[in-house]
Amino acid sequence: MTPEEITKMLRQVRRGRLSIEEAVDRLRNLPYEDLGYAKIDHHRTLRQGFPEVIFARGKSPEQVEGVVRRMLRREHNILVTRGDKPLFERIRRLDGRAEFHPLSGAIAIRRDKKVRGKGIVLVISAGTSDIPVAEEALVTAETMGNRVQSIFDVGVAGIHRLLGQSRHLRRARVIIAVAGMEGALPSVVAGMVAVPVVAVPTSVGYGASFKGIAGLLGMLNSCASNVAVVNIDNGFGAGYLASVINRL
Amino acid sequence: MTPEEITKMLRQVRRGRLSIEEAVDRLRNLPYEDLGYAKIDHHRTLRQGFPEVIFARGKSPEQVEGVVRRMLRREHNILVTRGDKPLFERIRRLDGRAEFHPLSGAIAIRRDKKVRGKGIVLVISAGTSDIPVAEEALVTAETMGNRVQSIFDVGVAGIHRLLGQSRHLRRARVIIAVAGMEGALPSVVAGMVAVPVVAVPTSVGYGASFKGIAGLLGMLNSCASNVAVVNIDNGFGAGYLASVINRL
Amino acid sequence: MTPEEITKMLRQVRRGRLSIEEAVDRLRNLPYEDLGYAKIDHHRTLRQGFPEVIFARGKSPEQVEGVVRRMLRREHNILVTRGDKPLFERIRRLDGRAEFHPLSGAIAIRRDKKVRGKGIVLVISAGTSDIPVAEEALVTAETMGNRVQSIFDVGVAGIHRLLGQSRHLRRARVIIAVAGMEGALPSVVAGMVAVPVVAVPTSVGYGASFKGIAGLLGMLNSCASNVAVVNIDNGFGAGYLASVINRL
Amino acid sequence: MTPEEITKMLRQVRRGRLSIEEAVDRLRNLPYEDLGYAKIDHHRTLRQGFPEVIFARGKSPEQVEGVVRRMLRREHNILVTRGDKPLFERIRRLDGRAEFHPLSGAIAIRRDKKVRGKGIVLVISAGTSDIPVAEEALVTAETMGNRVQSIFDVGVAGIHRLLGQSRHLRRARVIIAVAGMEGALPSVVAGMVAVPVVAVPTSVGYGASFKGIAGLLGMLNSCASNVAVVNIDNGFGAGYLASVINRL
Amino acid sequence: MTPEEITKMLRQVRRGRLSIEEAVDRLRNLPYEDLGYAKIDHHRTLRQGFPEVIFARGKSPEQVEGVVRRMLRREHNILVTRGDKPLFERIRRLDGRAEFHPLSGAIAIRRDKKVRGKGIVLVISAGTSDIPVAEEALVTAETMGNRVQSIFDVGVAGIHRLLGQSRHLRRARVIIAVAGMEGALPSVVAGMVAVPVVAVPTSVGYGASFKGIAGLLGMLNSCASNVAVVNIDNGFGAGYLASVINRL
Amino acid sequence: MTPEEITKMLRQVRRGRLSIEEAVDRLRNLPYEDLGYAKIDHHRTLRQGFPEVIFARGKSPEQVEGVVRRMLRREHNILVTRGDKPLFERIRRLDGRAEFHPLSGAIAIRRDKKVRGKGIVLVISAGTSDIPVAEEALVTAETMGNRVQSIFDVGVAGIHRLLGQSRHLRRARVIIAVAGMEGALPSVVAGMVAVPVVAVPTSVGYGASFKGIAGLLGMLNSCASNVAVVNIDNGFGAGYLASVINRL
Amino acid sequence: MTPEEITKMLRQVRRGRLSIEEAVDRLRNLPYEDLGYAKIDHHRTLRQGFPEVIFARGKSPEQVEGVVRRMLRREHNILVTRGDKPLFERIRRLDGRAEFHPLSGAIAIRRDKKVRGKGIVLVISAGTSDIPVAEEALVTAETMGNRVQSIFDVGVAGIHRLLGQSRHLRRARVIIAVAGMEGALPSVVAGMVAVPVVAVPTSVGYGASFKGIAGLLGMLNSCASNVAVVNIDNGFGAGYLASVINRL
Amino acid sequence: MTPEEITKMLRQVRRGRLSIEEAVDRLRNLPYEDLGYAKIDHHRTLRQGFPEVIFARGKSPEQVEGVVRRMLRREHNILVTRGDKPLFERIRRLDGRAEFHPLSGAIAIRRDKKVRGKGIVLVISAGTSDIPVAEEALVTAETMGNRVQSIFDVGVAGIHRLLGQSRHLRRARVIIAVAGMEGALPSVVAGMVAVPVVAVPTSVGYGASFKGIAGLLGMLNSCASNVAVVNIDNGFGAGYLASVINRL
Repeated sequence: MTPEEITKMLRQVRRGRLSIEEAVDRLRNLPYEDLGYAKIDHHRTLRQGFPEVIFARGKSPEQVEGVVRRMLRREHNILVTRGDKPLFERIRRLDGRAEFHPLSGAIAIRRDKKVRGKGIVLVISAGTSDIPVAEEALVTAETMGNRVQSIFDVGVAGIHRLLGQSRHLRRARVIIAVAGMEGALPSVVAGMVAVPVVAVPTSVGYGASFKGIAGLLGMLNSCASNVAVVNIDNGFGAGYLASVINRL
Repeated sequence: MTPEEITKMLRQVRRGRLSIEEAVDRLRNLPYEDLGYAKIDHHRTLRQGFPEVIFARGKSPEQVEGVVRRMLRREHNILVTRGDKPLFERIRRLDGRAEFHPLSGAIAIRRDKKVRGKGIVLVISAGTSDIPVAEEALVTAETMGNRVQSIFDVGVAGIHRLLGQSRHLRRARVIIAVAGMEGALPSVVAGMVAVPVVAVPTSVGYGASFKGIAGLLGMLNSCASNVAVVNIDNGFGAGYLASVINRL
Repeated sequence: MTPEEITKMLRQVRRGRLSIEEAVDRLRNLPYEDLGYAKIDHHRTLRQGFPEVIFARGKSPEQVEGVVRRMLRREHNILVTRGDKPLFERIRRLDGRAEFHPLSGAIAIRRDKKVRGKGIVLVISAGTSDIPVAEEALVTAETMGNRVQSIFDVGVAGIHRLLGQSRHLRRARVIIAVAGMEGALPSVVAGMVAVPVVAVPTSVGYGASFKGIAGLLGMLNSCASNVAVVNIDNGFGAGYLASVINRL
Repeated sequence: MTPEEITKMLRQVRRGRLSIEEAVDRLRNLPYEDLGYAKIDHHRTLRQGFPEVIFARGKSPEQVEGVVRRMLRREHNILVTRGDKPLFERIRRLDGRAEFHPLSGAIAIRRDKKVRGKGIVLVISAGTSDIPVAEEALVTAETMGNRVQSIFDVGVAGIHRLLGQSRHLRRARVIIAVAGMEGALPSVVAGMVAVPVVAVPTSVGYGASFKGIAGLLGMLNSCASNVAVVNIDNGFGAGYLASVINRL
Repeated sequence: MTPEEITKMLRQVRRGRLSIEEAVDRLRNLPYEDLGYAKIDHHRTLRQGFPEVIFARGKSPEQVEGVVRRMLRREHNILVTRGDKPLFERIRRLDGRAEFHPLSGAIAIRRDKKVRGKGIVLVISAGTSDIPVAEEALVTAETMGNRVQSIFDVGVAGIHRLLGQSRHLRRARVIIAVAGMEGALPSVVAGMVAVPVVAVPTSVGYGASFKGIAGLLGMLNSCASNVAVVNIDNGFGAGYLASVINRL
Repeated sequence: MTPEEITKMLRQVRRGRLSIEEAVDRLRNLPYEDLGYAKIDHHRTLRQGFPEVIFARGKSPEQVEGVVRRMLRREHNILVTRGDKPLFERIRRLDGRAEFHPLSGAIAIRRDKKVRGKGIVLVISAGTSDIPVAEEALVTAETMGNRVQSIFDVGVAGIHRLLGQSRHLRRARVIIAVAGMEGALPSVVAGMVAVPVVAVPTSVGYGASFKGIAGLLGMLNSCASNVAVVNIDNGFGAGYLASVINRL
Repeated sequence: MTPEEITKMLRQVRRGRLSIEEAVDRLRNLPYEDLGYAKIDHHRTLRQGFPEVIFARGKSPEQVEGVVRRMLRREHNILVTRGDKPLFERIRRLDGRAEFHPLSGAIAIRRDKKVRGKGIVLVISAGTSDIPVAEEALVTAETMGNRVQSIFDVGVAGIHRLLGQSRHLRRARVIIAVAGMEGALPSVVAGMVAVPVVAVPTSVGYGASFKGIAGLLGMLNSCASNVAVVNIDNGFGAGYLASVINRL
Repeated sequence: MTPEEITKMLRQVRRGRLSIEEAVDRLRNLPYEDLGYAKIDHHRTLRQGFPEVIFARGKSPEQVEGVVRRMLRREHNILVTRGDKPLFERIRRLDGRAEFHPLSGAIAIRRDKKVRGKGIVLVISAGTSDIPVAEEALVTAETMGNRVQSIFDVGVAGIHRLLGQSRHLRRARVIIAVAGMEGALPSVVAGMVAVPVVAVPTSVGYGASFKGIAGLLGMLNSCASNVAVVNIDNGFGAGYLASVINRL
C-alpha cells in the first residue's frame, strides 16, 4: 500500500464512499504482519515509500517464499537479495514477472515501473571483480523507481579512463562508487562532481585488503567530503540510500 | 567566486563589457593558488559550490592564517575546523565577522548568509558528550547555506524521549544523527523517516568503545538502509554531505 | 544427584537407615568421573543446581555418547549443544525422551519437567536469521526448568513492532535479547524494563559486522545499564545465565 | 519520584485527597526535563526504580551541576561517576550529604538509605590496581540500596587465597568479579557458586593486555556459564546490573 | 648424526682408524642437503640435539616423502606434524616403525627410544576439544626422548578437578598447559608449581574467542610469571621447547 | 604496442611512409578498449613499458578469455595470475605458446623474450611452503624481460644456510625476499647487500600468523632500510616492482 | 621464609627443640597476610622459591611501602618493578641496601646474594632503545640468584655483529632475547643454540609496530622452536621465567 | 670509510706504500665499534654505501652524542632522525656544519656533498599536514647524495592539481609519495609514471584513520603495481630506499 493509496482511501472515507469498518479492516495489518519467524513491516511503504527488502542469506527458502507470498498481496515491487537460482525458480512460480540477476543473486519483481527518482543514479565501479556488488546496487535502484546508468572498470591507477567519463559523472544526480582493494575511486570521483557519492567498499582483494577493510577505511577517510559510506559489499544499501536521496 | 559570478562575468565578456585580458586575469589563479605548503583549490567553489574547508590540526597558525588570507580575496564564506581560541583571535583580525564555536573549535566567517539548501538540516545527538561533534556539523551546514535545527540528548535507552521528537524528525529534509557508545541512534531514527540520515559515530565512550569503533561498526551495520556513514567525530563531513544533498 | 537427594541420603545416614559404606560408595564418584578424554563434573549439580552441558563441536560422536551415557546414570536433565541429526539419533537410542531442535542443533533430554525458575524467561530476537541462536537460548532455559516465551523479528529499525510488544516485555522476569548486525535491540529493550537483559550478539550480518563483533561491541557499550553480555552466538550461555538469575 | 510515591499519590487522587490539577502538575515533567544540553529522564525512576546516573567525563562542571540541581528536586539518591575533587566541592555545595570516593571519582548523595536489594552484593577483585573499578561498583550498588561486601587482591595465580574466601562467596546473592590482565577470576569464582557473577574487565595491565581487551575476551569466553560481562572498567554498570538482579 | 657419533668419528680419525678422505665424505653434506624445494638442515642435530621437524601442511606428499627419505639416512628419530592417513601410509612404506596419531595428524618414526630428558614432561589440557593439540605436544616430547604424562579435561570452572591433580603437577619437571576459550588454565597451574609452564592456546571456542586470540592474550597476560607462551595450536612447539628445557 | 613501435610508427609518418589515416587508426584504441565488463588499458604499455596483467580470481573464464583475446592483438607478452588448469587450456587454444605454472596458477604467454632488465632479479624464499608465491614473482619478472634466479628454503633459524648463499645475494641487482611466519628473512638479507630488497609476506603459518599479518608487520618494521614491502602473497606485485626497478 | 628454613624449623620441632606452639605461630601467616588493599602471598616463597614481586604501577606509594615493609619481615630479597626515584627514596629508608635501576625503574633489595641458578642467564638485546626492558630482565634474574651477562645492540640487519657473539651465546644456559620493531632476534639466536630462548618483544618502534604487536607476532611465529614468548615489555617476566628454568 | 677509501688503501698496501700493520690497524674496528649501549656498524658504509642512521627517539641525548662523536671520526655524512632543538645544539657543538630541520626533527651533517644518485628523487605529498614526514624523506635523500625535488598538497580529491604536475612526475627517477587519510595518492601517481613509487602512509587523520592504518592498507592494496610501501611516518626509510634505488 503506497502513501497515495492510503490518501485515496482516507478521502473515500471522508466522502462516505467507504465504510469505516472496511477501512479499519484494510488498515488492520498495516503495522506489521506476523508469520512467527518474521514480522513483515508493511507500514514501511507508508513511512519510507518502499517495502521491506528480503535478505535471503540465513533464511530458509520456505521462509523467503512465505514472506514474498504475503508481500505480493500488498506491495507492488519486491526485492530479494543474495538469493540463488533455486530460490528464484521458487519465487517465479509465485509471480512470473520475477527476474534473476545471477552475479549478485538479486531477485526482483517489478510490477510498478513508474520512475520516481528525479535524476540519474550512476553506478561506477573500479574493477571487473566489483561488478556483482555494482549489479546489486543497480537492481535495487531500478526496482525502487530510478533511471540508472553504469560504468565499469575505471580504477584510479589508469586515471585517464576515469577522466574520459567525466561527462557522464557530471550528468548524474547521485553517484554510487563501488571499489575493492584500496578503495580510492570514491575520493577521486567525489572531487570531480558536486553531488553526493555513495561509496561501497567490496571484499575484492587479497592479503592486507582484509576482505574489504582496506577499502572501507579508505572511504571513511576520504579527503573529499561529499562521500557517504555504506557497509562492505552492501550494494543493496547503496542503491537504497541513493534512491532515498534521488526522491528528495 | 561562485558559479553565478563566473556566469555573470562570461556574459559580460560576450557582451563586450569586459575585456578578454581582464577576464583572463580574473580566472588565472582559478585552478589553484600555490603557497608552497598549500595549494588552495579555488576551483572547488566552481566544481562543488563551496570552497575548501581548512582543517586546522597539523597546520601551524601561520599556515592557517596564510590560507585564510588568500581565500578571503576570492571566497565569501570560510570555515576553519578544529581550531582554538588563539587561532580565532588571529583570524578575527583578518575579518571581524569571524565567529568562534568553542565546543567544536570551529571558526566561521559568513559574509554570504543566503539560504541555498532546500529544506531543514536537523542535527540530533544521543548524549551530552556528543554535542561538540554535533556543533561542528551544525556550524558547517549553516555556513554552507542551510536552515538548521538541533535536538540533543535523545539516546535510545530512553526511547520515549526520541519518540517525543517525531514531529521534528519528519519535518527535516536531511538528518544528521550523532552518537557515541553503541551508536544505535541512526538506526532508530532512520526507521522513523523517509529521508537520508547521515550517521556520525563519536569517540565518546570508554573501554570497548575503542574511541568510536563500536559506534562506527554499529552504524555501518544498521538494519535501516537510508543511513550514510561518515568517519568518527567527523561532524564537518556530515554537515558538508548533508549540505550537498540538501541542495539537490 | 540433586542437592535434595544428597540431603535425603545424609538424613538416612544420621537415622541409621543407610550404612556409611553404602553412602561412601554413592558419593565416591561425586567430585568427577574420569573417562580419560573427559572428567564429568557431577559435583556441579550440587554446586550450581544443573549438570554440565555438553558442547558437541570438537568432540567425536563416540565421546559425546560416552559422556551422555554416564550422565544418564546420575542426572535428570541433559543438554547437548551444537549437535546434528546423526548425533541425535545416537543419543535417542540411549533415551527415547531425547528431543532435537534442528535450527540450533540442541539435543535435550528432559526427564524432570518441574519448573524451578520463579518468573518468565522471555527470548526476543531482532531478525529471522537470529532464530537459531534464540532457539538455543530457549531450549537451554526450558531444560533448566523455566517457563519461557519468545518474540522474533522485532529489530529497532521498525520501532513500532517492538513497542507493540511492551506488555510482554514488562511481564518477564529475565529477558534474553538476541541480535546480529548492529545489535541495538538490547539497549532499546533494556530501557523499557526494570529487569536484567541478557544480550546475545549473533554472527548474522556481513562485511563490517565481522562475524558478530559489531553487535558485541554495541552491546558492551549499551547506554542502558541493566544489560549483561555473553559471547557471540552463545545462546546456551544466555539461557544458562538467565536460569541462574531466575532461580534467585 | 519512586514508584511507591507515584502509587501513594494516585491513591490520594482516588480518595479525593489530592486534586487532579495538582497531580497533573506533579507528573508533568515526568517524561523528561529539557536543559538544552541534556534531557533528564525522570521517568526512569518509575521504569527502572533508580534515576539516571551522571557520567561526568565529557561534560563541563556547569553541565553536571545543572543536572544534579534539577535531579535533587525530584530524586532521593544521586550518583555521579568519573568526577574529581573540584566537581565534588561544587556538588557538596548543593547538598552537604554528598560523599566523594577518590579512587574511582564517584560522588554519591544518599538521602534514602533503605535497603532494597534482597541479598548481599559481593565485590571481589584480582589485584590491588583493580580497586578503583571495584570501588565504583561498590558505591553504585550501595547507593542503589544494597548491602555490599568486598574482597580485594585474590588473583588466580595464588588459588589458595581465593579458596580461603569460599565461605564469603557462597553467602552472596550476586557477585561482581573485577580483574585486569588475563581476567581469569570470574571463571574460577563462577565455578564455585550457584549465583550470577558479573564480570568486569579492567584496563590494568600492559603490552598485550591492550587496555583490557585481553581480560574482556577472557571473560566472554569463560568456561563457566553463570557469567555476565560488562564493558572494560565499567564498575558502575556492574553495580547497576547487580542491583537490578538483587531486587528480583 | 648425533654429537656423540661426530665425537666418535673424530676420535677414529685421530687414532688413524678412519681416513681423512672418508671423514670428509661423511661430513660433506652436514651443513645442509639441497633438494631444490628444501634445504635439509642436518647440522641442526649437532647444534640442537634434534633434527628438523617436517611441517606437512603446505607441502606436497611427494615433497614430504622426499625429505623423510633423505633424513632416514642420517637421523634416528623423525617427526612429521599435521599429516594425514594417506601421508602416513606413504611414510610407513619408507620405514615400518612409523606411527600415526590421528587426532593431531602427527607421524613419528622412533628408532632411538633412549630417554634423554631428566624429568617428566606433563601435558595438561582444559577441555576434551583441546586433546588434538595436547596429543601433538605429547608425541613431540616423547619422540624427542622424554618421559611424558597427561591429564585431560581439567578446566578452571571446576577448580576441584584441578586441585585433585596437584600431586601429579608437583612431580613434573616441565608442564605443558593446553587450553582454548579463555585460556586460564596455565595461570592457575603455574601458581601451584615451581617449574616452567609452557602455555599453548588452542583455537577451540567460538565467537569472541577469535580462533584462539582470547586464550593467547590471556596467557601472555598471565598473573603467574613462570609461564612461557607459544603460538596458537602449536602443540609441536610446546613439546619441543619442553624437551629443550628438560634436557638442561 | 611498445614505445619503440610507437616511435617507429611516428617516424614513418614523418617520412611519409605511413598515411596519417592509418596511424590514427592504429592509435585509436590506445587509451583503452571497452569490453563492457572491462576497459583494457593498452596505453599502459606506453606509460609503463608493460601491458596490464590479468588477475583471474573474481573474473569468469569467459571474461578472462575475452580480455586475453583482445590483448593478443596488440601486446607481445601476456600474464594471467591466480588461474587454474581449465583456464590455462582455454588460453592455450588462443595461443599455443602459453605456459602454465601450477604452484602459483600463473599463465604466461611470452612472445617477446628480449631481456630488458639490466641485472639479475633474485627470488629467495624462507620455506618450502612459500614457493608458490615465489614462483609467481619469478614468472612475472621473467615475463617482463628479466634474467631471474632463485634460492628456496633458507629461513633465518638456520642462518648458516643463508650465509652460504651470500655470493648469489651480492650478484643480484634487485632481490625479492619471500617469507611466511615471522617474516624475518628480508631484514637479514637486506643487511647483507646494497641493493633494494622487495619483501613479500606470505600467508603461510598458523595461529597468530593471522594469514600473513605477522610477516607483513615484521617486514614493515624491518630494522634494515633498503626494504620495500608489498601486499601479503603478492608475488606478482613484487615481480612487477622488481622489474620496474631493474629497468632503471 | 625459604624452603630450607621451613625444613630446618620442622627438624627442630621433631627434635623437640622448638615447641609446637612456637612453630604454629611462625607458620600462621604463611598462606597470606591481609593488608586490605593487598593480600601478601608469603606462601609463594615455599611454593616457588621466590617471594611475590611488587608491580608498582597502579599502586600508590603508600601501598607499595606497606607491602615492602611487611615483606621485609619474612623475605630475604625483594623486587619492585616500574618504580621511580621518589618511590626508591621511600624504600631506601626501609632498608639501606635498596638499589635503584633508573632505566627500567626496578628497585631491588638483595640481602641474600647466594647463587642458586645453575648456569649463566644471558640477556641479549637488538637496539639501544630496548635496554630498559633488558635491564628489568637482568635485575630480576640477578635478584633471584643467577649469574647474568648482557650483550646490547646486536640487531639482525647487521648479522655479523651477532655472529661475533656466538661464543657467548653458546656458554649460556638460558638466553633472554629482547627486541622491538620486527622482533627477529630470538629466531636467529635460537637457531644458533641448543638452550631455551625467552623472547621479549618491546614497544620500541613506531607506526605499524603497534607498540610491540609486530614484534610479539614475529616471536610467536618464530621458525625456531626453542623460543618461549612473554608479554610486550615484560622484562620482569622473562627474568623470572629464566630463573625458574635455570634452577632446574 | 667509503669503499673508494678502502680500495685506495689496499692499493697502497699492494704497492708497498702502506705497512701491513698500519692497514690492519685502520681496518681493526671496521666490523663494529662497541660503546656498551651501542655497537656502531662502521662496516655498513662498506656493505651499503651509507653509514648507520641514528634514530634519536628512545635514546638519551648523551647516547646520541656518543654515537655521533665516534661516527664523525670515520664517516663523512651523518644523519640523526626524530631529534629536537636541544639535541641539535649539542650536536652542532661537535660539528658546526650540522643543520636542523624543525618540522621532522632531522639533524644532518653533510661534509660530502657529492651527488651519487643517478636521477632526481621527487617527494610528493597529499596534504599540508604530511609535510613533516615528506621533509624527513627529503633530508635523508639529500644527505645520501641525491638531487631532490618536492611538490606538496596535491591530494586526489582535487585531481587537476595533481595532473598539473605530470611534467615533474615524468622527470623523476624515483618518486616518494607521502599521504595520510585514505592514502590514495601513490596509486594515482604510480599509474602516471614508469618508475618505482615509494609510498609512505602518515599518521595524519582522525577517527577511522587509526593513526595511519587506513593509509597503510590502502597503499598495500594499491591497484598500481610499481608501488613499494614502507612503515607509517617512515620518511627516513622512504628516503633511504629511494637512494638505494637511485644509485643502481
